[in-house]
Amino acid sequence: MGELSIERDEVFRIRTLRVPGLLARALAAAGEYGANIGEIETVYIGADHNIREVAIIAPDEEAIVKIGRAMDAIEGVHVLPGSVDKVFDQHLGGKIGIVSRATVRTLQDIREVYTPGVARVVQAIAADESVADRYTWRGRTVAIVTNGTRVLGLGNVGPAAALPVMEGKALFYAQLVDVNAVPLVLDADDPADVIDTVERLAPGFGAIHLEDIATPGVYEVERQLQKRLQIPVFHDDQHGTAVVVVAAILSAARRTGREIADLSFGQLGLGAAGSAIAGLASGFGFKEMSGFDPNPLGIERLLEVAEPGIDVLTGTSESFLDEVIERSDVLVMTTGQAGLLDPSRVRDGQIIMALTNPVAEISTQEAIEAGAAVAADGSIVNNVLAYPGLMRGALESKATAITASMKRAAAFSIADSAPDGQLLPDPLDIRVHDAVARAVSEAAETP
Amino acid sequence: MGELSIERDEVFRIRTLRVPGLLARALAAAGEYGANIGEIETVYIGADHNIREVAIIAPDEEAIVKIGRAMDAIEGVHVLPGSVDKVFDQHLGGKIGIVSRATVRTLQDIREVYTPGVARVVQAIAADESVADRYTWRGRTVAIVTNGTRVLGLGNVGPAAALPVMEGKALFYAQLVDVNAVPLVLDADDPADVIDTVERLAPGFGAIHLEDIATPGVYEVERQLQKRLQIPVFHDDQHGTAVVVVAAILSAARRTGREIADLSFGQLGLGAAGSAIAGLASGFGFKEMSGFDPNPLGIERLLEVAEPGIDVLTGTSESFLDEVIERSDVLVMTTGQAGLLDPSRVRDGQIIMALTNPVAEISTQEAIEAGAAVAADGSIVNNVLAYPGLMRGALESKATAITASMKRAAAFSIADSAPDGQLLPDPLDIRVHDAVARAVSEAAETP
Repeated sequence: MGELSIERDEVFRIRTLRVPGLLARALAAAGEYGANIGEIETVYIGADHNIREVAIIAPDEEAIVKIGRAMDAIEGVHVLPGSVDKVFDQHLGGKIGIVSRATVRTLQDIREVYTPGVARVVQAIAADESVADRYTWRGRTVAIVTNGTRVLGLGNVGPAAALPVMEGKALFYAQLVDVNAVPLVLDADDPADVIDTVERLAPGFGAIHLEDIATPGVYEVERQLQKRLQIPVFHDDQHGTAVVVVAAILSAARRTGREIADLSFGQLGLGAAGSAIAGLASGFGFKEMSGFDPNPLGIERLLEVAEPGIDVLTGTSESFLDEVIERSDVLVMTTGQAGLLDPSRVRDGQIIMALTNPVAEISTQEAIEAGAAVAADGSIVNNVLAYPGLMRGALESKATAITASMKRAAAFSIADSAPDGQLLPDPLDIRVHDAVARAVSEAAETP
Repeated sequence: MGELSIERDEVFRIRTLRVPGLLARALAAAGEYGANIGEIETVYIGADHNIREVAIIAPDEEAIVKIGRAMDAIEGVHVLPGSVDKVFDQHLGGKIGIVSRATVRTLQDIREVYTPGVARVVQAIAADESVADRYTWRGRTVAIVTNGTRVLGLGNVGPAAALPVMEGKALFYAQLVDVNAVPLVLDADDPADVIDTVERLAPGFGAIHLEDIATPGVYEVERQLQKRLQIPVFHDDQHGTAVVVVAAILSAARRTGREIADLSFGQLGLGAAGSAIAGLASGFGFKEMSGFDPNPLGIERLLEVAEPGIDVLTGTSESFLDEVIERSDVLVMTTGQAGLLDPSRVRDGQIIMALTNPVAEISTQEAIEAGAAVAADGSIVNNVLAYPGLMRGALESKATAITASMKRAAAFSIADSAPDGQLLPDPLDIRVHDAVARAVSEAAETP
């Protein structure tokens, strides 16, 4: 906590004299402190000056302060008060809300949605619980569960501090696939307590979305809940990530005109995300699969999640690491080691996913310069591309679990939705999520 | 289950020839089977016939069938297909939903509501948890918790079957006071499990609303949670009911021109609701308080919840029961015994609340005929009048508990809001809930 520097966005209100080149000079000042420029909106055009709102994406808080001063120091440029930190504004009062879907205007309406009418719905469910999916919100409602032990890159921040992240996830569920997602942040560090709590909560939900729970506990949480519950239990940090990364690989193969069956796949780093990526990839028919992790537990985990009957070469030694780098046409890295891959080792035409944050195993630019056909870093992994459609599809098909074939269908569908020239589609494009939901639902029905 | 007959509403589509008196005859047929007439809407006026939608409130399912046949048998009247059971319609897909309150249209928006921006909100809450009330939905969000062990008059129907009732409660929270209420139906019969579960869930909520949990377990659930949590914990079946009943008594006293200080208060039946009513009443300065229950545990419970320093006469004997009936100016009955009070025993000018459902200790009509100044039965007790404003006021004032003075403020405010000629206000009138919330919030701030 506090160690990690977080990118900091601020919308500056800037008044400039109407002198050509002045805005550019102001923006250049931001660049000097490592900042990028976001959206620029002109809010006032006057006879001799303009006012614009300029979003600045700075590496940290300190840079924001310096950039403000630097811009203000330019003659003809004035940073106005009222520059806003829009982040906290956007979170004010929470990012989601509960609304009534029934119209209640008369006492007769009360009789229907509440007593005495509701008693008949109660009796119908008591007689046949499956009816609840139809006559309550359960059939379209997901619990997003965390205990706050591994939130973003921030570590164990506790349940309350995890809430804004869960609300963010819920917001996308609402906006993109019209699924109700309830953030539940648990004061329960012990995985056994998380399991018990979710099991007790399950009758009110159509699916469980696990998020930001520390490894290795989360593996047991997921395994036990999948065993005990008859509804999908989905750990987004593993499977959402895996679906997006595999979609990017499918997309990259297509762009470079290659068939999956002709490619060898290599995974360096077999933590939660790494083993899930390799596990999912093992169902796509790569010519060869290999996975490296210095920790034998990572190897064990990969072999557990890989598709049955698929040979996976594994190893924990330096020499095996070298071999994987050497032989893989598709090289995925989740090692936690910045700069692990020296550009000299990149093979011509390799597809490279260097996913360690905030600094990757190799930068995209270096990889491409060294001969990679396609290269991407952690910034491509936006789980928002995967989990909304996956869960919507699972709910619609009344699936009792999210199977490998459903995840594969999601990955194909995401890859298919990528516009020309992009590895992955725009996460805010509702058509993508519709397509994913449909594909997942079909895959659920024909296992 | 299934023993209890539930009132059954149906909207019949009726075609009648345009012959005067025909509709009245059709409606009379309904009356013969004990049904009441709800709203009537004319949906088609033709040259020789009209079509109307007539809401019929029948005592049970069987009566609906018979009424349909009886109306259809009248010459010139035809019951059309498409008569609808609106109850299930109203519940289809659930009665509440989660929506996004933030607008997310651009990648910059994602950066603000989600990563990387959200990390700064996470850090702010990790540094000072109280900030969560401002930057998450928590400050305006209630968990409605049940284990389904005592739902309406239906008993232990289990958690899933309780969900439509909890959604009904949540709907009113949304519509009347703009509070987010999350229905949580727990697979946890043991009160200890309910306590543990709610304690773990608490970091994500601003208050806990307990509902339809069986006695006596619910007392321990409420007591333990109030002790362990720093947020309001409110058992609606007790305190919501108490607030509404006391409001009706205040209103009745006012209507009959009497001061509370001149009245003696008597309570027959000290279960969950009865002891809560008497307990709350004990803070209003009645001339005298007395409470009867055949079970000494009921007496114990009343003495526990009565205001400190207030004398309450109590007893478990038949003769004490008679004495309470005899001496009380305000007589509240929650005995579970239909017809307990013979009209001959009603005192002139008595205020009588006979609250046992579905058949009261004495009917309103009998009580008035026997000389009661005001009489009411269980149909007045609509908790929707109390809980939304109470919780909104508690959340707004950041109260850590719902105190007796907050409940008293709610009761006064509800009584004050009753229009001339009505004992209580319309539960759908938003001004009532605004007034209650304001009164409760003020009472919380000046304890």
